[in-house]
Amino acid sequence: MSQVKSDLEIAFESEMKKINEIADNLNLFDEEVENYGHYKAKLSLSILDRLNENEDGKLILVTSINPTPAGEGKSTVTVGLAQAFYKIGKNAIVALREPSLGPTMGVKGGATGGGNSQVLPMDDINLHFNGDIHAITTTNNALAAFIDNHIHQGNELEIDVRRITWKRVVDLNDRALRNVVVGLGGPSGGVPREDGFDITVASEIMAVLCLATSIQDLKERLKRIVVAYTIHKTPVTVGDLKVEGALALLLKDAIKPNLVQTIEHTPAIIHGGPFANIAHGCNSVIATKMALKLGEYVVTEAGFGADLGAEKFLNIKTRALGVTPDAVVIVATIRALKMHGGVNKNELTNENALAVKDGIQNLEKHVETVRKFNVPVVVAINKFISDSEEEISVLKQWGQDNGIKIVLTEVWEHGGKGGVELAESLVSMLKDPKEKFNYLYELSDSIENKIEKIAKEVYGADGVNISPKAKKQILEFNENGWGDLPICMAKSQYSLSDQPSLVGRPSGFKVEIRELKASIGAGFIVALTGNVMTMPGLPKKPAALNMDVDELGRPKGLF
Amino acid sequence: MSQVKSDLEIAFESEMKKINEIADNLNLFDEEVENYGHYKAKLSLSILDRLNENEDGKLILVTSINPTPAGEGKSTVTVGLAQAFYKIGKNAIVALREPSLGPTMGVKGGATGGGNSQVLPMDDINLHFNGDIHAITTTNNALAAFIDNHIHQGNELEIDVRRITWKRVVDLNDRALRNVVVGLGGPSGGVPREDGFDITVASEIMAVLCLATSIQDLKERLKRIVVAYTIHKTPVTVGDLKVEGALALLLKDAIKPNLVQTIEHTPAIIHGGPFANIAHGCNSVIATKMALKLGEYVVTEAGFGADLGAEKFLNIKTRALGVTPDAVVIVATIRALKMHGGVNKNELTNENALAVKDGIQNLEKHVETVRKFNVPVVVAINKFISDSEEEISVLKQWGQDNGIKIVLTEVWEHGGKGGVELAESLVSMLKDPKEKFNYLYELSDSIENKIEKIAKEVYGADGVNISPKAKKQILEFNENGWGDLPICMAKSQYSLSDQPSLVGRPSGFKVEIRELKASIGAGFIVALTGNVMTMPGLPKKPAALNMDVDELGRPKGLF
Repeated sequence: MSQVKSDLEIAFESEMKKINEIADNLNLFDEEVENYGHYKAKLSLSILDRLNENEDGKLILVTSINPTPAGEGKSTVTVGLAQAFYKIGKNAIVALREPSLGPTMGVKGGATGGGNSQVLPMDDINLHFNGDIHAITTTNNALAAFIDNHIHQGNELEIDVRRITWKRVVDLNDRALRNVVVGLGGPSGGVPREDGFDITVASEIMAVLCLATSIQDLKERLKRIVVAYTIHKTPVTVGDLKVEGALALLLKDAIKPNLVQTIEHTPAIIHGGPFANIAHGCNSVIATKMALKLGEYVVTEAGFGADLGAEKFLNIKTRALGVTPDAVVIVATIRALKMHGGVNKNELTNENALAVKDGIQNLEKHVETVRKFNVPVVVAINKFISDSEEEISVLKQWGQDNGIKIVLTEVWEHGGKGGVELAESLVSMLKDPKEKFNYLYELSDSIENKIEKIAKEVYGADGVNISPKAKKQILEFNENGWGDLPICMAKSQYSLSDQPSLVGRPSGFKVEIRELKASIGAGFIVALTGNVMTMPGLPKKPAALNMDVDELGRPKGLF
Repeated sequence: MSQVKSDLEIAFESEMKKINEIADNLNLFDEEVENYGHYKAKLSLSILDRLNENEDGKLILVTSINPTPAGEGKSTVTVGLAQAFYKIGKNAIVALREPSLGPTMGVKGGATGGGNSQVLPMDDINLHFNGDIHAITTTNNALAAFIDNHIHQGNELEIDVRRITWKRVVDLNDRALRNVVVGLGGPSGGVPREDGFDITVASEIMAVLCLATSIQDLKERLKRIVVAYTIHKTPVTVGDLKVEGALALLLKDAIKPNLVQTIEHTPAIIHGGPFANIAHGCNSVIATKMALKLGEYVVTEAGFGADLGAEKFLNIKTRALGVTPDAVVIVATIRALKMHGGVNKNELTNENALAVKDGIQNLEKHVETVRKFNVPVVVAINKFISDSEEEISVLKQWGQDNGIKIVLTEVWEHGGKGGVELAESLVSMLKDPKEKFNYLYELSDSIENKIEKIAKEVYGADGVNISPKAKKQILEFNENGWGDLPICMAKSQYSLSDQPSLVGRPSGFKVEIRELKASIGAGFIVALTGNVMTMPGLPKKPAALNMDVDELGRPKGLF
């Protein structure tokens, strides 16, 4: 067996075009493009004004089955599909999320696609990428400092130090910061209180940045963020602290989308990366809008499986974006379907058509869910060399029986060429006029009803159990006038249910709503099921142990 | 009295040149310049190789008397002097430190000069400036996460959790983080221990970056950093944790100097900004080296007064740089001299020639100190409208009596034009061949002797009192083989002594050495006198309250 090249090796062997060339191909003006090095740029928000009257391109959302340890390759297919559109002469743009540095340092595996379907420069994108996430970390922590300083300086707003909901963040996997006590060391160290750190991508600032439609909207969202409650249990906002201007100032560059390219020089706009559990898991509204003005076909993705990322894209992001997808691609692999059919990770190379058949149920549920929104669906199989003819034919038969388009792709190995059939299927499918989008719930539905609709319609649950704590919160949230916000579910990504071990298509379960969280700046209510990890830890042997940089600044060991 | 324009207003009214034009004037190649937006760039380290054989320019170090609340304007004079050189047809470059965001958000007042002697774009330089400080924050905190993860995963190195010297950092003023307890919440939250946060510019990573001469040297310095002691009291290094490669990778862009311009389009290289108390307070060695290869006259500065910044520049930085200054400029104002002469801040506008005469003693000591290094000195008076003829003549008379060159500058108001006399004095002074530089101490002197020499020769102390704790540390440090490192004094900047209230030229005092700190990566032993603040707090009304950004991304209220 020949040695397989790493993504980093493939990336380094490919020659990038200067970013200005990519920008020129998009007919951008020089003053709209701020280079960050030779191969990255930030795009001015003025592009949105200039192209305001342009018709939007077609929006294709890529999602997946519930992720498994077998890997699905959603980002790889997303990049590969955009390259495939480019290959067949379509002006395509891929719009992705920015990776978080924490997982990069912890676990081998990036968020920039793989093989011949990558975005470049993958090392820079996986490291500090134009400083966006660092700006968000700083903004988040500046706000925390303003809160603690307010308390230290006399606490005019009567903030209850036991009811501060704003946490600090680092863009690292650092379990020791999950639960901390700050303000120790006597009066000069402020007021002692319990606190904790999240990973930056879980910060509400990230969600706010990703849902904002302009700097003005950013500032208004920042102003609405609830950071604490007073001793009278009334909410305290950023506006009460009068720092929304300073926070917005800290984000003045981070709000500009980043332009890079794929390995085949397809333009890629990468911007924002909120968690797909306690936030909505999609790239920024501004980036997507801009891509739609600049491209004929825009391929974007959402976090985790369709039950989390796509549901939130469809119910939350589209409401801020003002645009709904023209089609949804659900990515699966034969290997992952086998795991949903009950096969262990170390038996994946054994042929097992029966397990594929069982596992298809997971895929089937996601197809059904997307169809409820009245959006056309294609299933893309990210092909592996170990997939057998029989396994594939089981899947194809199921597609035929149920009127579901299934397309094999080989974008990891062949780049855009490996996705041409998928691109062509979509081009042909999108010739039909767009049908009316169907929201799963109305914003005016009650909080309970919205949660229940998601649990039943998307997860296939029998219903929900709302804890006494969450019930009390619903009352309070309604009193605060937050009842009309959409719901952002925080649930295990590994199962359609809230129990990670239930693979396939579980039934007969109820979803346990443990607690709610008010993300008023982002503009949604988070419903937490079970324990949601907002600060990952490092493994025993972090990926960082293999990393290095040579005398010319070239990275080593980064995937 | 007419309204005085703010620095931000002056900055915004001036037209910048595109950074490529500035780079072209320095004869840099396109591939050596990585733009960060239209007006900032990073410079490739390959420039150092290409110009290795070029003769160095003249190096001028700007320092000041002990800072007072009256303000001295050291950065303004530094920028103005470079502009003045440019004005008289000399190819000059100003090499500055990067400002920290913490003070920017806290107290009105930037670190980018003022009036018509500023570096631009001042807003970007004062905010996230090409991400350097964020990269340092991330590197510092990644290391902290690796340490806590090592302990959590079994603690193979037998780190004593009570003897971890590595602290986490944020680039903010956040007193609540000075003393914290991390690792709470049960086994999933790691191992509980006392910890604390410093401001990023106090991180040893910053000092390491600023003293490194190449990526290889950076990696070796990182490897040597001592982060903790084992239960057997032996030092634990980054090398023991095997993460120097990952840390260096995180700094691969931060190590590249940043190119910007002054308001008069003089090239400015701004890079690195370590604290001048627990670190050495100078811009990076790499940036200074590069400026010396690119410019005929390089004007740089060091933190606080000559007793701190200049002493460390001369004893620490020159040893890594391999170059010593050709001249030192000591900046003072009549107002500040009056404060050193005992006048209160609110009486500064009253003429008081007697107080000037008394205050000159502070200036005199700094002149004497610099002359001990055998480097020519010029005193630059940063002129204020309130300075009287008589006050100025007192100063001039003192200069004449003591053979000290004193030059008035008006660079805040008039830019380079206001510093032409100073520039011309330096040009004429530097025609003489450079005399042999005289180090204040040999590295082979004992730790006690090195400290004593600084205290006596630079501060004018009678001697030092070394605490029992510090004495014990000296024994340990010698055992560890650290006895030959230079000393980095952490002392109040406001006084020549270690007591902030003793202005002027105190005498008859001893310096109290409370504790030592081993910065083995940076390559110095910090001697702490009194309490040194490594994490500032915010004032009751932080500067952030006035900050804002408009719909076009333009900042407001930033100075």
